[in-house]
Amino acid sequence: MSKMKLTILGSGSALPTEKRFNTSQVLSIGEKHFMIDCGEGAQIKLRQYRIKTAKLNHIFISHLHGDHCFGLIGLISTFAMLDRKANLYIHAHADLEKLLQPQIDYFSQEMPFQVIFNPINPRSKSVIFEDKTVKVTSIPLKHSIPCCGFLFEEKEKDRHLIKEKIEFYNIPVRELHLIKKGADYTTPSGELIPNANITREAEPVKRFAYCSDTMPVDKVIPLIKDVDALFHEATFEEEEKERAKETFHSTAKQAAGVAKKGNVKMLIIGHYSARYRNTDKLLEEAKAVFENTFSANDGSVFEL
Amino acid sequence: MSKMKLTILGSGSALPTEKRFNTSQVLSIGEKHFMIDCGEGAQIKLRQYRIKTAKLNHIFISHLHGDHCFGLIGLISTFAMLDRKANLYIHAHADLEKLLQPQIDYFSQEMPFQVIFNPINPRSKSVIFEDKTVKVTSIPLKHSIPCCGFLFEEKEKDRHLIKEKIEFYNIPVRELHLIKKGADYTTPSGELIPNANITREAEPVKRFAYCSDTMPVDKVIPLIKDVDALFHEATFEEEEKERAKETFHSTAKQAAGVAKKGNVKMLIIGHYSARYRNTDKLLEEAKAVFENTFSANDGSVFEL
Repeated sequence: MSKMKLTILGSGSALPTEKRFNTSQVLSIGEKHFMIDCGEGAQIKLRQYRIKTAKLNHIFISHLHGDHCFGLIGLISTFAMLDRKANLYIHAHADLEKLLQPQIDYFSQEMPFQVIFNPINPRSKSVIFEDKTVKVTSIPLKHSIPCCGFLFEEKEKDRHLIKEKIEFYNIPVRELHLIKKGADYTTPSGELIPNANITREAEPVKRFAYCSDTMPVDKVIPLIKDVDALFHEATFEEEEKERAKETFHSTAKQAAGVAKKGNVKMLIIGHYSARYRNTDKLLEEAKAVFENTFSANDGSVFEL
Repeated sequence: MSKMKLTILGSGSALPTEKRFNTSQVLSIGEKHFMIDCGEGAQIKLRQYRIKTAKLNHIFISHLHGDHCFGLIGLISTFAMLDRKANLYIHAHADLEKLLQPQIDYFSQEMPFQVIFNPINPRSKSVIFEDKTVKVTSIPLKHSIPCCGFLFEEKEKDRHLIKEKIEFYNIPVRELHLIKKGADYTTPSGELIPNANITREAEPVKRFAYCSDTMPVDKVIPLIKDVDALFHEATFEEEEKERAKETFHSTAKQAAGVAKKGNVKMLIIGHYSARYRNTDKLLEEAKAVFENTFSANDGSVFEL
């Protein structure tokens, strides 16, 4: 059974602190790891939290503020030194390639793998990555520069075959693929066996939405509707609501409002301003609006 | 009295580990801080070790391998966000400006201070910085790319006036400047007062040499001769001597050999390969050759 797990590498915002590195997270789906944003020091946290990078092939960058991408060059250099062979895909605003490629060319002259940039348009909702089991869609946000979140969705999983029934009806192997997808089975004598009699429910698909650096905006609601977990930035306490607005950020209460409207199952807040040594109040303000809220710290792991 | 103090921000080499960030150090001379190399996460360590950056105006980069300079862009961005006003001088190979300026232009569009690049030629010994109290000279090294170390020297300090004697001879204020520099005093009646009678010894000048990423080379010896402290890279144990040679690095024993030939007062080794979880053997191997050796760890502070 594939599990979905979120590991917070960095829970801070623009200024790193002793306790909070700049933004970076890893979403693990089964054995695959997806990195979301890559602030300075993300590679150090990957190592510290023992996340295997062999299955980390995709990095999603929400926007080109330094606290969300300065860790890329170090990570890529390290991958090169460790003789990584698998291509690394970076999904980000097109400008990133222009900024990063000259550095890669200079600092890692004999790359044993390719860095492949997938330019995304943060202003439009679109599928930016898809494989057999996972689909990632951009979520346009409202920040001081083009910025998007990401919706990670598992694809429909196969139904489980009930072994004894498959044997009982002597169903040929070639039929099993469709049966797992939900097809009924017709025996050679013409008897229809309903799918429900020969399979069990598939595991429910999991969905995780990441909303980074944004004012609270209603247009995200349909995209995050009913997700298993929503990460939403909560840079400020409610007291700093004006400051939040000026800087295109959210308060914890506003983040909780988005979670509530989206009817999500669980909210994770983070991206705290460096001014808050203690973030209890942020969590409290969010919980007053949306009870099932959790606070992200560096090293937090959330099983979704 | 101005003190010289070395704080190790990062003691690792190419690959950062949980315990060792990439190379970066701060040499504090009185109230001035000089940063030497700036690996990823240096700004986090600055904060963690409570080093005030208002008096950090000069950064010296030994060579353009990522583990010695990837922390610059984050540090500069943070300085911009904190509304730093003082210019920041970066002394480094000319290529750094070409690599870093486009990033600064993109990520810190309204810089409240200037980053001024001082291109240095790592292949020649030359004075690359000098102010009233300190002089910094490059030390050409032998690495896989152009690389230099740095010799930090305090300038001759003023002798201390003996207050009672100055009053006794009723020496005019305008004479004191020269007397502090060592001049004798002649009274209005023509009596010569030897300087030694009216002043006390100045504090001895301190000298610190930094030899980063290099094979052991004899040409550095005259430059580091008799320094109060030498930092010398010690990437490998003696067992990996061949590997050290291939990669243009030093073993701990070789570093100690340099210290011994240079008759330095104290040796600090670091820049350890990530393969060594425990670096006791490196220290042991160095101490067998040069007893007064110390091991650098992240957060180590050496009073020179």
